[in-house]
Amino acid sequence: MTPLFPVRPRLLLGPGPSPVHDRILEALGRPTIGHLDPQFLAIMDDVNARLRRLFGTENTLTFPVSGTGSAAQEAAMANLLEPGDTAIVGINGVFGGRLKEMAARMGAQVVSVEAEWGRIIDPEQMIQAHRKHPEARLVAIVHAETSTGVHQPLADIGRHLADSDTLFVVDTVTSLGGVPTELDANGVDVAYSGTQKCLGVPPGLAPISFSPRAVERIRTRSVPCQSWYLDAGLLADYVGEGAQRKYHHTAPINMMYALHEGLLMADEEGLDARFERHAEVGGRLQTEVEARGFSMFAQEGYRLPQLTAARLPEGTVEGPLRKALLEDHGIEVGGGLGPAAGAIWRVGLMGSGATHENVDRLLAAIDTLLA
Amino acid sequence: MTPLFPVRPRLLLGPGPSPVHDRILEALGRPTIGHLDPQFLAIMDDVNARLRRLFGTENTLTFPVSGTGSAAQEAAMANLLEPGDTAIVGINGVFGGRLKEMAARMGAQVVSVEAEWGRIIDPEQMIQAHRKHPEARLVAIVHAETSTGVHQPLADIGRHLADSDTLFVVDTVTSLGGVPTELDANGVDVAYSGTQKCLGVPPGLAPISFSPRAVERIRTRSVPCQSWYLDAGLLADYVGEGAQRKYHHTAPINMMYALHEGLLMADEEGLDARFERHAEVGGRLQTEVEARGFSMFAQEGYRLPQLTAARLPEGTVEGPLRKALLEDHGIEVGGGLGPAAGAIWRVGLMGSGATHENVDRLLAAIDTLLA
Repeated sequence: MTPLFPVRPRLLLGPGPSPVHDRILEALGRPTIGHLDPQFLAIMDDVNARLRRLFGTENTLTFPVSGTGSAAQEAAMANLLEPGDTAIVGINGVFGGRLKEMAARMGAQVVSVEAEWGRIIDPEQMIQAHRKHPEARLVAIVHAETSTGVHQPLADIGRHLADSDTLFVVDTVTSLGGVPTELDANGVDVAYSGTQKCLGVPPGLAPISFSPRAVERIRTRSVPCQSWYLDAGLLADYVGEGAQRKYHHTAPINMMYALHEGLLMADEEGLDARFERHAEVGGRLQTEVEARGFSMFAQEGYRLPQLTAARLPEGTVEGPLRKALLEDHGIEVGGGLGPAAGAIWRVGLMGSGATHENVDRLLAAIDTLLA
Repeated sequence: MTPLFPVRPRLLLGPGPSPVHDRILEALGRPTIGHLDPQFLAIMDDVNARLRRLFGTENTLTFPVSGTGSAAQEAAMANLLEPGDTAIVGINGVFGGRLKEMAARMGAQVVSVEAEWGRIIDPEQMIQAHRKHPEARLVAIVHAETSTGVHQPLADIGRHLADSDTLFVVDTVTSLGGVPTELDANGVDVAYSGTQKCLGVPPGLAPISFSPRAVERIRTRSVPCQSWYLDAGLLADYVGEGAQRKYHHTAPINMMYALHEGLLMADEEGLDARFERHAEVGGRLQTEVEARGFSMFAQEGYRLPQLTAARLPEGTVEGPLRKALLEDHGIEVGGGLGPAAGAIWRVGLMGSGATHENVDRLLAAIDTLLA
């Protein structure tokens, strides 16, 4: 049998996890301390403050959920919805579909607003759906659809919902740290993310943020949150500065060190510079692969720089090429999901992976494979 | 402001996290690869095989949940229960109480079998409760009650339930790797644990195991599991050898490296030797602190060696002593929870922390503090 370790390192240019910088790997391996140790609580406070800045919000209740992005997605649905509530969900890819599935499991009536995979959800359609269902508890949409590379506009929907009692929930799993999320400016009430995308931290924590009116909603629920583990009311007693620091569960200590280091690196770089780097490097990749016969899957004008979804040149078969890219060139990219399976590649240039050098390596490998 | 890093290392002798060996910290920092990379799937398979051996089971569906122990506890309840089901729960501490809370949030009717904190649940009482409620979907009990140090006997309950349609669920968060769990011999259908106790791995993953009849139960549910994130039916398509390896969520890659290393160390030591080490070192601590005026909180004959709950000598106040132990001696122990708050210390000698040297260090510090 082949030994399991050491693993052959890969250049991670798929939809996540993204490459993890040595500084973050070093942080992961720091000595473990207790989850109620004052030293750890100070680290958690600092993480939460940095997350607020990155999300673009002043929301007090901002913290990493102890799970991966899908756990935070479920936390958003579980905390806001009760059986019988209406949820309006935009679906133009896998992650919108998952929002619908989760909302349904919470007992909500789901109103779907669908668009073709690869296209944005027309904000006006979301607003119309809300006009038809003003009683809706929430409107949920995916900011960066990892399955299609689509960059969803948020501001019009947020502005419309601000005057209603309906909460605005946004999936920022693949956007946080790569493009601006600006929760407060966009009128977003709840947003969640993951560490393994544009933050460049291994998977295992999932930042989430609740606006004051989302917190009020949680406080006034008529039945408890279905999930104890993800109950934001209970978590608030542990995670926040000024909280009682009441034991709830044992936080993933070493992952928190890693997230802290990733946020520190983002602040050192500067958020504007970080967004600019993602935009420039991703834009270049898109131009270069189009020149090689790839065609963009996402609608023009709404393409994420950090996640490029592209159909392969005519006459190529993606599976064997993707396997050769991994095995012969050590580069991981993602295949398509759902209706896009077998049709596209998903290339991530996220976090510390968003460099011209990585674009060069990928293009050189593609040129060899397609020669 | 004091810099957050480096942290002052602590000797972790509380109820968890336990001390993490350098080998495990080194494993944590290995290069991140993808969650669908064949190399990662091979590591996950090996982790699952080692977990089976450690749990004492041949259950195919055995894997680490991507969260902490409470996530796996919730996974057990969420997957087995539907609204209206009856759940019989033994409660003699915090974690039994949490089982009840979680079962109730799943819409179950909970039948509580209670015992005083510090005493076991009389297995005969659990069996009687089941005779009264033979329709119960599950009987749940805590094997190692972290809030009291009580070691619950399982075999009689398991034997009784084997002839029924009721599933036996056991919380092994603090027992796995410290004392034998022997799921199959004890007739346990579902057991879950955490990495940060007797495995000596940082918090962030939570092993769980489902028997074939538990899997059948999940397959024949009439409504979907409330949790999408913890849905064992969906997870089974990703985690197991021979599974479709269908993407569900992004597994915590680096935490899996660490868990793998911890399980490797357990196998290298040998499970019998490991249990013997915990028994010997914990037994010695209990004798020594009793000699210093502490009195055991858990019932004689049912004390966990890896988690000692003890009332402090008369005339001492635990809070300031515990703080001095942390700040002046760098040793973390836990305080009491619930009705035991302010009354006891909880001392963990778990995983690589279960050494005579650590007992010596703790006793020396106690002698100084009580002098």
